[in-house]
Amino acid sequence: MTRFAMNGKVYLVGAGPGDPELITVKGIKLLKEAQVVVYDRLISPELLKYVNPSAELYYAGKAPGRHSLNQEEINELLIQKAREGKMVVRLKGGDPFVFGRGGEEALALTRAGIPFEVVPGVTSAVAVPAYAGIPVTHRRIASTFTVVTGNETENKEEREVDWEKIARVGGTIVILMGLSNLPFIKGELLKYLPATTPVAVIYRGTTPSQKIVTGTLEDIVEKVLAAGIKHPAVIVVGDVVKLQGELGWYSPSALTE
Amino acid sequence: MTRFAMNGKVYLVGAGPGDPELITVKGIKLLKEAQVVVYDRLISPELLKYVNPSAELYYAGKAPGRHSLNQEEINELLIQKAREGKMVVRLKGGDPFVFGRGGEEALALTRAGIPFEVVPGVTSAVAVPAYAGIPVTHRRIASTFTVVTGNETENKEEREVDWEKIARVGGTIVILMGLSNLPFIKGELLKYLPATTPVAVIYRGTTPSQKIVTGTLEDIVEKVLAAGIKHPAVIVVGDVVKLQGELGWYSPSALTE
Repeated sequence: MTRFAMNGKVYLVGAGPGDPELITVKGIKLLKEAQVVVYDRLISPELLKYVNPSAELYYAGKAPGRHSLNQEEINELLIQKAREGKMVVRLKGGDPFVFGRGGEEALALTRAGIPFEVVPGVTSAVAVPAYAGIPVTHRRIASTFTVVTGNETENKEEREVDWEKIARVGGTIVILMGLSNLPFIKGELLKYLPATTPVAVIYRGTTPSQKIVTGTLEDIVEKVLAAGIKHPAVIVVGDVVKLQGELGWYSPSALTE
Repeated sequence: MTRFAMNGKVYLVGAGPGDPELITVKGIKLLKEAQVVVYDRLISPELLKYVNPSAELYYAGKAPGRHSLNQEEINELLIQKAREGKMVVRLKGGDPFVFGRGGEEALALTRAGIPFEVVPGVTSAVAVPAYAGIPVTHRRIASTFTVVTGNETENKEEREVDWEKIARVGGTIVILMGLSNLPFIKGELLKYLPATTPVAVIYRGTTPSQKIVTGTLEDIVEKVLAAGIKHPAVIVVGDVVKLQGELGWYSPSALTE
């Protein structure tokens, strides 16, 4: 007698920006039900406490000195576990479709015929500035915001990010994964924007170790170095940063420092 | 004997894009604890079921034929209720700082000396495309996305949105609150982008009544009219829309139709 295995299902779940309470109700429900959880670096350890002790737990992220999976291996793992009939949660920092290659995982799953669902998360691009007292949009200050990945280095052969166009769009610019590349980005933006353009760099936003450095395109690199800020950080460029002085005091994270 | 009233606190809470399970864990916790809830139009009625029956409930949004508050009245209400010592939740669609004037409410509160906190939400700008099968970023297709308010009409005196700059930024463009203005926006974008640029319009995204129309800058207005789509809708412009054909089938909302 042949037994046909039913495929499981994969949920691409956004874990939110860091504060474990910023995951969605749907996300936490699925995390509790999951038989397999494949999680990234920067996922709050608090969230992993909700995982059923009998579930299989896989670490996919990249931390120094720790084995991590490349994107193809992650795709393969998700497909394989779903084919075993399991309910799989792929837990990603922020939102699955704001960088982080959730789209690629979704395509790999659909091409393998695996049912899946995306559960959007609170994106760091908006929430990290918010916790720091910076609204990405504000009437008469910014009627648009642009989110861009900052990890393209100067030497990359096929550059996808055109800093001139991004500088010229106006409104707020939010740069994710750009800290180690900040001197290059600063140089690019300075070609098209005034040296006095306000900039904020927020380290580990929405977590108790959140640190905020504000300055201008001119002096931000020195200020970040002086503050000893490292990855992960969100960079915000534009006049909304000026509101930080008035609104930043309320941040729940800032208050604990 | 004089009794000094302690000020309450105001929480500016993002309710998410429509699916009531896309509110955050923190948001739902605060909603249950609130003594006063001031909510917008487009908030899921499901969410209001979590509000304590003894709490005061105020409708702030604008629906035809129903009294609604202007922004100053909303600010005043939040301040007044906090001064009565109450715990106030200001429940806003999507994320409080992605349009929706959360920054103005935050400034009014800080200037009145009222303690407050922002609880970011899942923004419609990312989640509505996601539920429709469109990742706003995708490797080699879009390394940036720009979110813009579409409610500025052609005749507005001081225009804040510069469609030329937005068209030229490259990557994905997400337009919120732009449906009634779509013919104007289409005309502006067509000056700088090819007529074949893919466009998706998503009505009531992430809810059971979600409807998706895809087309190009050339034909989207006719298609939207033919489909009878109305406010509220999210408009997505860019090559990521092409992924909708492959990924769109999985949408939990689409499947219920």
